[in-house]
Amino acid sequence: MCTGLSHTTKDHYFGRNLDLEYPYNEKVAITPRNFPFEFRRLPSLPTHHAIIGMATTADGFPLYYDGTNDAGLSMAGLNFPGNADYKPEAPGKANVAPFEFIPWVLGQFDTVDQVETALTEVNLVDIAFSAEFPQSPLHWIISDRHGSLTVESVAAGLRVYDNPYGVLTNNPTFDIQSFGLNDYMHLSTTPSENRFSERLEFDTYSRGMGAIGLPGDLSSSSRFAKAVFTKMNSVSGTSESESLSQFFHILGSVAQQRGCVQVGGDDSYEITIYSSCCNTDTGVYYYTTYENSQITGVDMHSADLDSDTIVDYPLVTGQQIAMQN
Amino acid sequence: MCTGLSHTTKDHYFGRNLDLEYPYNEKVAITPRNFPFEFRRLPSLPTHHAIIGMATTADGFPLYYDGTNDAGLSMAGLNFPGNADYKPEAPGKANVAPFEFIPWVLGQFDTVDQVETALTEVNLVDIAFSAEFPQSPLHWIISDRHGSLTVESVAAGLRVYDNPYGVLTNNPTFDIQSFGLNDYMHLSTTPSENRFSERLEFDTYSRGMGAIGLPGDLSSSSRFAKAVFTKMNSVSGTSESESLSQFFHILGSVAQQRGCVQVGGDDSYEITIYSSCCNTDTGVYYYTTYENSQITGVDMHSADLDSDTIVDYPLVTGQQIAMQN
Amino acid sequence: MCTGLSHTTKDHYFGRNLDLEYPYNEKVAITPRNFPFEFRRLPSLPTHHAIIGMATTADGFPLYYDGTNDAGLSMAGLNFPGNADYKPEAPGKANVAPFEFIPWVLGQFDTVDQVETALTEVNLVDIAFSAEFPQSPLHWIISDRHGSLTVESVAAGLRVYDNPYGVLTNNPTFDIQSFGLNDYMHLSTTPSENRFSERLEFDTYSRGMGAIGLPGDLSSSSRFAKAVFTKMNSVSGTSESESLSQFFHILGSVAQQRGCVQVGGDDSYEITIYSSCCNTDTGVYYYTTYENSQITGVDMHSADLDSDTIVDYPLVTGQQIAMQN
Amino acid sequence: MCTGLSHTTKDHYFGRNLDLEYPYNEKVAITPRNFPFEFRRLPSLPTHHAIIGMATTADGFPLYYDGTNDAGLSMAGLNFPGNADYKPEAPGKANVAPFEFIPWVLGQFDTVDQVETALTEVNLVDIAFSAEFPQSPLHWIISDRHGSLTVESVAAGLRVYDNPYGVLTNNPTFDIQSFGLNDYMHLSTTPSENRFSERLEFDTYSRGMGAIGLPGDLSSSSRFAKAVFTKMNSVSGTSESESLSQFFHILGSVAQQRGCVQVGGDDSYEITIYSSCCNTDTGVYYYTTYENSQITGVDMHSADLDSDTIVDYPLVTGQQIAMQN
Repeated sequence: MCTGLSHTTKDHYFGRNLDLEYPYNEKVAITPRNFPFEFRRLPSLPTHHAIIGMATTADGFPLYYDGTNDAGLSMAGLNFPGNADYKPEAPGKANVAPFEFIPWVLGQFDTVDQVETALTEVNLVDIAFSAEFPQSPLHWIISDRHGSLTVESVAAGLRVYDNPYGVLTNNPTFDIQSFGLNDYMHLSTTPSENRFSERLEFDTYSRGMGAIGLPGDLSSSSRFAKAVFTKMNSVSGTSESESLSQFFHILGSVAQQRGCVQVGGDDSYEITIYSSCCNTDTGVYYYTTYENSQITGVDMHSADLDSDTIVDYPLVTGQQIAMQN
Repeated sequence: MCTGLSHTTKDHYFGRNLDLEYPYNEKVAITPRNFPFEFRRLPSLPTHHAIIGMATTADGFPLYYDGTNDAGLSMAGLNFPGNADYKPEAPGKANVAPFEFIPWVLGQFDTVDQVETALTEVNLVDIAFSAEFPQSPLHWIISDRHGSLTVESVAAGLRVYDNPYGVLTNNPTFDIQSFGLNDYMHLSTTPSENRFSERLEFDTYSRGMGAIGLPGDLSSSSRFAKAVFTKMNSVSGTSESESLSQFFHILGSVAQQRGCVQVGGDDSYEITIYSSCCNTDTGVYYYTTYENSQITGVDMHSADLDSDTIVDYPLVTGQQIAMQN
Repeated sequence: MCTGLSHTTKDHYFGRNLDLEYPYNEKVAITPRNFPFEFRRLPSLPTHHAIIGMATTADGFPLYYDGTNDAGLSMAGLNFPGNADYKPEAPGKANVAPFEFIPWVLGQFDTVDQVETALTEVNLVDIAFSAEFPQSPLHWIISDRHGSLTVESVAAGLRVYDNPYGVLTNNPTFDIQSFGLNDYMHLSTTPSENRFSERLEFDTYSRGMGAIGLPGDLSSSSRFAKAVFTKMNSVSGTSESESLSQFFHILGSVAQQRGCVQVGGDDSYEITIYSSCCNTDTGVYYYTTYENSQITGVDMHSADLDSDTIVDYPLVTGQQIAMQN
Repeated sequence: MCTGLSHTTKDHYFGRNLDLEYPYNEKVAITPRNFPFEFRRLPSLPTHHAIIGMATTADGFPLYYDGTNDAGLSMAGLNFPGNADYKPEAPGKANVAPFEFIPWVLGQFDTVDQVETALTEVNLVDIAFSAEFPQSPLHWIISDRHGSLTVESVAAGLRVYDNPYGVLTNNPTFDIQSFGLNDYMHLSTTPSENRFSERLEFDTYSRGMGAIGLPGDLSSSSRFAKAVFTKMNSVSGTSESESLSQFFHILGSVAQQRGCVQVGGDDSYEITIYSSCCNTDTGVYYYTTYENSQITGVDMHSADLDSDTIVDYPLVTGQQIAMQN
């Protein structure tokens, strides 16, 4: 499945792991301000914020997995199978198709607060992009440097949650996911202490024992607990190199190794196809892939952001080894 | 603490995470065949196998953390505090000082089987390298493509264990560490199944649930369980790029993120200072560092292996970002 | 906190653990058919089903903790702090005060199906019994031999859940509690199997390892998982002695031992004050107390069920030891 | 399997759960001082301490499962499959057959200290009682009010451990079992605290959350952790009734419910056949059985302790219900 992450050192960073069994020809795509966004049930946006992020472009439309706009607002869609429930068209509402949701939000808004207000009118309408790209069951994390939201369209309606962790994985619904963290409140980065019995002696035989009980499997609820623990306790310098390194390390704590999660038949395994980290202050989008651990970067501001044509960059997916001799 | 790993795809690979709160000026060091190894209580080795690995060189002597020789035999020392117990000099035994152990083994032997035989005569004698480099409490993993050993000098004497996992972390002793895995035998890479009650229905709400119960904290016993699970279930292609990528992903599953393990005062944290992976068939030693996720390589065979002078390569520790635009 | 249980062998049995730090002068109380039930906002019930159960009688009114009527329908209230949310009076609804809920249900209905229908009209109105007996935050389990319901009045309204486990503890809300069981679906009463790796051997060193992962602390969610596992896998003969013994063993699996759950200051501990088991077919109510492990019984049909006067029996709380010599 | 327990309030109490799939015709047996104990390789004891405990008597010899002598010393044997390793006869040693071990110890010694000294000469010799009663793989807990020992005859020899818990279950060996408790040192009887992150808020939704992580399955290592936690944190009054009640509650925390541990075929389940508690100061032996929760007592001092004839009492195994009306 996937893990989304928002993290601030000096600059604000936003990114995610995409965990799937195969890639979908995704590329780093820059949508400039004058690319005309046409929507199915809503007025088009002929001009809007520029967006950088990971997308599959189909019929000229950027199907973003995650992105950041030139105001520093970010958004990612994550798998939410069995829970995502899109609705019939609702008169008087902003009927946004799920595949339009990222461009519609990142195109128009500057801050999470603005999005939160706009969401009161949103209806996620059950319109798929095409027969070739059917509906994906998703929920979303929307972040700026001041906070994050989780948005879920479930059977009971659209749910918008404050997300104090800046972390999103997949099932269950965000309220249950968050409740589950209560069972981990005693975990700590400091050494374990004897609270068991004053009459016994224990051996702190290893560093790190203060977090015994933190799960390490790759299910969505275990990744959520582990990523929140790692992120909330993260310590790093504030330079670009230190911040980026730390961000990818947090994502690495919940990355998926080929072989650990078997899907369907014997030969298919979920892996972390890419990990991304966008500096939302500078507009540089960084990524690694399962087989290329070097960080590759694409700078939004190196493109002509006032153009009307999407520019995209195929991922560098082969291991880039630097030999020292 | 640390994690050692031996893994075979087509070629055999050996490496480790070094987890500490600060580096010790370690470098990739190639010791050629004619560098004279002088030992404290044993005859010197004027000529021997060439060795590549990570070492701090002190007074001209390579203090290897891990290494591989030109016959494909590998060895790494890992922290073993409270359990390592070195002995007084034993007449009639091969009295090897702990800091000499890696050169003494890799200098002379080709295979794990040869080492196992030689170990019957070994006494790990309590001689420190110097006042500046005092004794470290260690245990060791020794591997070739056919198998691995764990060697522990404890109060009861020298213990040599077959290591069917090709994984070593730290405390407790290897027999207890291995016994602990029994409690995880039911974990699986396949989806979870209902074995609870035929009269109830359950929801497989996420991929990866078959391994629920696998620990995710960074203590040595939890890292052992997680690394063994990840390694034993690892699936990858056999090319150098695929093999290397997978090896670093396995190590990544137990890497330490800054902030998660507080050491002593408030400002000190254990991190994965470097991760290494040596192709023991080709003699190329690869590594990443906490802040440089690109893989850097050093090829043993690019050096003059018949020389008598150690060659070393300072680590490339800054993030090497490849910009695409 | 508490655990409620419904279980069928040949007869149907219903009971609970009451876990608190001190008793409330509860007694086994039989309310006969002609005791006039007066309600605060609803028509009184001058005649109704007879009820046997545990109650504190105040101002002549039986405040039932749990009970069973002469039609075999049962109901228990369990602590639900922070989640129970009682409502203002709602015109046109059946405005039942929480303390009236058990008599109102058990007085009128024969089956869970009838109750489920009636609940569509119920509003749990925020009226306390008295200043001396203020509002308790509760939720309820209602059972007959064919099934169980859980009823929760929460901020979002009255929630009625089918309860396929026949088990109720306390927080969180029943939907979250039930969801949590998914993480235990792999637990089994049969010996553990190696699903970890075909290339490793494991030691089934103990019987019972198939359920490793089942929690054993006394929090409400852990008791829920343990009680559901024990109940769903329970095996016993169908005689009264075998059925009763098994029922009390299931409750015993989540009983609270003095000292394990500290409440407030140093000298207060939650314990299982009583455990009850009513044979709903025969109307005999059995109980044990923390200090009296012998089963004591009270037979509803030994009382005059057509009377208008409540009969109650103080609990036998001292250990009843049978000496054999 | 089984759980042994030593616990002191004002008096000292010793007992155990016997967990098996069927009984062996065990009875409460009093061996008076002049019953002649004949041993296979050791001098007989024509006179000795009187003993009360649970035993199967075969060919006139009391095969004790657990017992207490008139000096207040107690001992129980618990299943230890795969680890127990009895030895060939050793010249110059006290060659005690496993089935003689309890009478030999309880017959002669007054205190744990005396036993510890004597054990330096003991060899547990591999002599079975008879073809009908073959060797059982056992280890033992030996207790007085001041302390407990664990005795294990394993491949490496006889191991005698101080047992600061006063608890014994089954596998693994006691050193590994004890080491495992380190992973639970953070568990507490007090409410859970937020040590996860100061920037997050958590909900202590239940009492008892401080012990989240305590295992609840019925494997020997999980029962050990749960029983030690319950015993070390136990709080009770010091009267006989309070002490007994508490002792049986501690044993109850690790009792086995029929159905939870399947053995071999479909119809066989391990259950707690009996739980015992001997007041070692008064010599009264109390027990409950799976189907008789009332405490039954047998007083050693009601028998003629200077006789030469064993007196035994068949267990009262049917549920003894006290009807109140």
